[in-house]
Amino acid sequence: MKLQGIIPPVITPLKDRDVLDVDGLERLIEHMLVGGVHGLFALGSTGEAPSLSYAVRREMITRVCKQAKGKVPVVVGVTDTSITESLNLSKHAADCGADAIVAAPPFYFPSDPPELLEYYQHLNSDSPLPLILYNMPGLTKVNMTLDTVKALMDEPNIVGIKDSSCNMMYYQKLLKLAVGREDWFTLIGPEELLCESVMQGGNGGVNGGANLAPKLYVQTYEAVMNQQLDKALAIQKKILQLGDALYGVGKHVSSCVKGIKCTLSVMGICDDYMADPLHRFRNPERQVIKQRIRELVDADVIDLSQFPQHAMG
Amino acid sequence: MKLQGIIPPVITPLKDRDVLDVDGLERLIEHMLVGGVHGLFALGSTGEAPSLSYAVRREMITRVCKQAKGKVPVVVGVTDTSITESLNLSKHAADCGADAIVAAPPFYFPSDPPELLEYYQHLNSDSPLPLILYNMPGLTKVNMTLDTVKALMDEPNIVGIKDSSCNMMYYQKLLKLAVGREDWFTLIGPEELLCESVMQGGNGGVNGGANLAPKLYVQTYEAVMNQQLDKALAIQKKILQLGDALYGVGKHVSSCVKGIKCTLSVMGICDDYMADPLHRFRNPERQVIKQRIRELVDADVIDLSQFPQHAMG
Amino acid sequence: MKLQGIIPPVITPLKDRDVLDVDGLERLIEHMLVGGVHGLFALGSTGEAPSLSYAVRREMITRVCKQAKGKVPVVVGVTDTSITESLNLSKHAADCGADAIVAAPPFYFPSDPPELLEYYQHLNSDSPLPLILYNMPGLTKVNMTLDTVKALMDEPNIVGIKDSSCNMMYYQKLLKLAVGREDWFTLIGPEELLCESVMQGGNGGVNGGANLAPKLYVQTYEAVMNQQLDKALAIQKKILQLGDALYGVGKHVSSCVKGIKCTLSVMGICDDYMADPLHRFRNPERQVIKQRIRELVDADVIDLSQFPQHAMG
Amino acid sequence: MKLQGIIPPVITPLKDRDVLDVDGLERLIEHMLVGGVHGLFALGSTGEAPSLSYAVRREMITRVCKQAKGKVPVVVGVTDTSITESLNLSKHAADCGADAIVAAPPFYFPSDPPELLEYYQHLNSDSPLPLILYNMPGLTKVNMTLDTVKALMDEPNIVGIKDSSCNMMYYQKLLKLAVGREDWFTLIGPEELLCESVMQGGNGGVNGGANLAPKLYVQTYEAVMNQQLDKALAIQKKILQLGDALYGVGKHVSSCVKGIKCTLSVMGICDDYMADPLHRFRNPERQVIKQRIRELVDADVIDLSQFPQHAMG
Repeated sequence: MKLQGIIPPVITPLKDRDVLDVDGLERLIEHMLVGGVHGLFALGSTGEAPSLSYAVRREMITRVCKQAKGKVPVVVGVTDTSITESLNLSKHAADCGADAIVAAPPFYFPSDPPELLEYYQHLNSDSPLPLILYNMPGLTKVNMTLDTVKALMDEPNIVGIKDSSCNMMYYQKLLKLAVGREDWFTLIGPEELLCESVMQGGNGGVNGGANLAPKLYVQTYEAVMNQQLDKALAIQKKILQLGDALYGVGKHVSSCVKGIKCTLSVMGICDDYMADPLHRFRNPERQVIKQRIRELVDADVIDLSQFPQHAMG
Repeated sequence: MKLQGIIPPVITPLKDRDVLDVDGLERLIEHMLVGGVHGLFALGSTGEAPSLSYAVRREMITRVCKQAKGKVPVVVGVTDTSITESLNLSKHAADCGADAIVAAPPFYFPSDPPELLEYYQHLNSDSPLPLILYNMPGLTKVNMTLDTVKALMDEPNIVGIKDSSCNMMYYQKLLKLAVGREDWFTLIGPEELLCESVMQGGNGGVNGGANLAPKLYVQTYEAVMNQQLDKALAIQKKILQLGDALYGVGKHVSSCVKGIKCTLSVMGICDDYMADPLHRFRNPERQVIKQRIRELVDADVIDLSQFPQHAMG
Repeated sequence: MKLQGIIPPVITPLKDRDVLDVDGLERLIEHMLVGGVHGLFALGSTGEAPSLSYAVRREMITRVCKQAKGKVPVVVGVTDTSITESLNLSKHAADCGADAIVAAPPFYFPSDPPELLEYYQHLNSDSPLPLILYNMPGLTKVNMTLDTVKALMDEPNIVGIKDSSCNMMYYQKLLKLAVGREDWFTLIGPEELLCESVMQGGNGGVNGGANLAPKLYVQTYEAVMNQQLDKALAIQKKILQLGDALYGVGKHVSSCVKGIKCTLSVMGICDDYMADPLHRFRNPERQVIKQRIRELVDADVIDLSQFPQHAMG
Repeated sequence: MKLQGIIPPVITPLKDRDVLDVDGLERLIEHMLVGGVHGLFALGSTGEAPSLSYAVRREMITRVCKQAKGKVPVVVGVTDTSITESLNLSKHAADCGADAIVAAPPFYFPSDPPELLEYYQHLNSDSPLPLILYNMPGLTKVNMTLDTVKALMDEPNIVGIKDSSCNMMYYQKLLKLAVGREDWFTLIGPEELLCESVMQGGNGGVNGGANLAPKLYVQTYEAVMNQQLDKALAIQKKILQLGDALYGVGKHVSSCVKGIKCTLSVMGICDDYMADPLHRFRNPERQVIKQRIRELVDADVIDLSQFPQHAMG
């Protein structure tokens, strides 16, 4: 399995703190599959994984795997401060037929590079599934050094990396490291960097906005792969426009997830309940989101026909 | 319950990643009770709580409560990124007879002050036990503002705070806030600040070193309470000496926990296995710790007679 | 010269961006001398030194030295990113009869410990005056490690340190380092920590509030030196009250300097013009400061009789 | 003047702490002009400006302007903590015929967005030359918000921005802001990002490596402008290779400047003395640099024929 293309980090639709919105999840996955995504990443940061109980995490894995199996690869986030719990999730994911696990560094005690290397070696040797590294220093506060990644590339069962560092100097060096391993893949997190990362040889994006407008991201990826640079840059501008409109309504680092979840609710896809400590947008922000969606529809960034008929109702 | 005095954050003795060192834990608790501690705090950062599986966390709660019940109050750390899992632990702690829970802010998604306030209100309203706040910005990367603490003081079931910010300006302002609530307590984390915090009106310390040399900390606390300032400062110097000797062997933020755990192992109290991503000291560091213990014994900082006969063997 | 007691970091009164308020400066120095301060520190952070032209810095040195000479020691801040300019200031300070220079690490390029050590050795060997180290990581973003301080203690012409790290664990270790050098002094920056630092053996404070209410700080220092702990803690509470009232009006790190400067203006001591990029309080904040001064007068924190008759007019 | 293309941040060759290497500077400028650079930026971070005395800074301005005048535009860094000194430099630059000044935010007191806006308005209104903004949060610790840049675009005399944030999400938003102002330019600092920034519509690079291998950077820029994407990416890889080889020898943030200066010395262009607090590479690092230069020559990254005959001697 060499993962490439657009692999959205799936939002976790909730009805309550500990209750999955099952119908919403089904609609959401269908929406993305119809949009042409190349894989699904359940239980990432965008999926609020660390805020969910293990019961909900397991249910999420079961349902995503069941619906997407045989259609696109499914990878599952097992990031945790406890390696035992990560491995428990990994076993469940294997049982459900997932294709790989994704793990960011443990994020309570900062681990130094030798400890982090050993951590990943332990996780990998005890996990039944291939492992994808996940560099997310903004939330884990741990920097995955290039030397650590290089050392981990020696393990055949560690198969790729998702980089959400927002640091394109680091990203280019990741690409350079990967030259010797044909089956390795290097995915980018922030959607604003999708176009330039793929231009430079990156393998695709794990972009939150692909929950909303999967085709936009798929088209950007494909345009670059087809060497249509101008077309790619033009679509990339729409992605930037979507983010400016929907991710800047709240005031904090979580504005992005909140904006996506609120938009999905407005569009009739799923509930926008969020697990503590985050909180969905209250009515004033929701009204702003509604107005901005209308503007994005007018600007041909969002295609209304891809959503349920009652959207925006 | 107004918690005061020395309440050590109990080390979690492990035989393996997911196996408690049951005999070691029993010896450790006995060692601290004999040393005169005023309470026990299970599953804090020093107890490596975030690295442990929930099964081990529950067993730890059960055993500490059983052994200490009726002797000193037991408080239990439930810090987690998932409020549902925190509440699950809280219920188990209540079933075991614990006296309160301790919770630092969720530490994956940074919560802004209104979100953090709401988080604690939710946690408190659904928890069967009184709640102690835990300010630990170095590891959670969330600052608990004075306004948040002030607002939470309106909830009678929230009963105190442990401050590990290392910021004595903040700590003094916490003491000032508490003036109106007689039953509130303000404990200090870093042992180097025990003496000065109690001098200023603080209620005691949750100090890692009290796993090793409980009497030293108890005597410091009591000297200040008895207005014996010179005596208190003299013992405080020994505490500083102990820390300089034992916490500076490793190179990283976790050196302190590693030093304590290694020393407890050398002294015959319990195993020093550590859960990923941390790793116990290998032999070279262990030899340094042994040498330093000898020096601390010679300097009357550590009292050998308080340890099992085979200690240092 | 062993500096001890209260050495206020003198505010730099300005009439315009590049014009000293000469009369105001004279009144300010007189106010502090009458208040019993033990020395004066010109051109620190509170004195906005980095924002001033070298012409104004030289004039400030000349005037402070002239007025205070023979009464109390004068030390002069020469912190700069260019060692050549620091040495130019140092020579001018020597010509004016200053007693020592004070230097924080250069603050544009972060220097690693060996570079910082060498920097201070160079500065010291070429400076005509004794050198006082200044640890101010909040503004310089450079941590002065204990090893660096220890190595610099070998230079007889380096005579002490002012610590504004707000980290009392570090401060205690500074005191421990100084045990072998009788003539060394360890001063504290943040006034909230004055009492506890002196209790532990510190030599005094470089506290901004001593521009306003010098007696308050002098009395705290003397109470601790006379072993009157309860009295010291009581006055320390007034210092905390003064800071809460006057330093929290603005919204940023510079609120403290702005509050002091505005209060001095309201009290008829000197102009409150500030050099770019800071800006004095506009009228709404000035009205708040006026109200708070009245409350501090009522609470016996500020003694009106120490100010010019037209104060608050 | 719309600055575009490659505008190297000129290294400041020194013979001693306060003595310019005049011959070396002349050779260096000639080397870059022959290499086809489109402008010169004197006294940036790479030029160690904050570490230099004002006398040396003025001499540097005089000499660079004299040699380059009429050939390429010259812009001059006036970044300082004192606006008066920045304006003094600006007047000198105007007298010497420079084309614009470049200013990062003052970097001792952190300014909040309204203060920073006002600061730039003051600097601009009193400066005789057009002003280029310089975003360099890694060293100034001040974030220049997009709102601040947007507001400053209303001043016709503020003409562009150099962005060294390493944040391509921010950079893309800068490009979007500039849509309404035809004469505005947006330059990138880090050379690793040159190719992708120009692809997206950026106007060029202020890249340290262009002191060494100006043609490499000029060719990358021109390839992108000529829509030769594959060629551009191929040369960009050489730029990455150059940086990996020469900037990673030292251990700290200043490794990049040290590597450039050492290489220029090895290549016979100029002296590699550095102003405190930085220090040129000692012999062991210099030998490593020599070896790496040889490898870069073998790999066709560095073209020996562009250097003096005695290079590497």
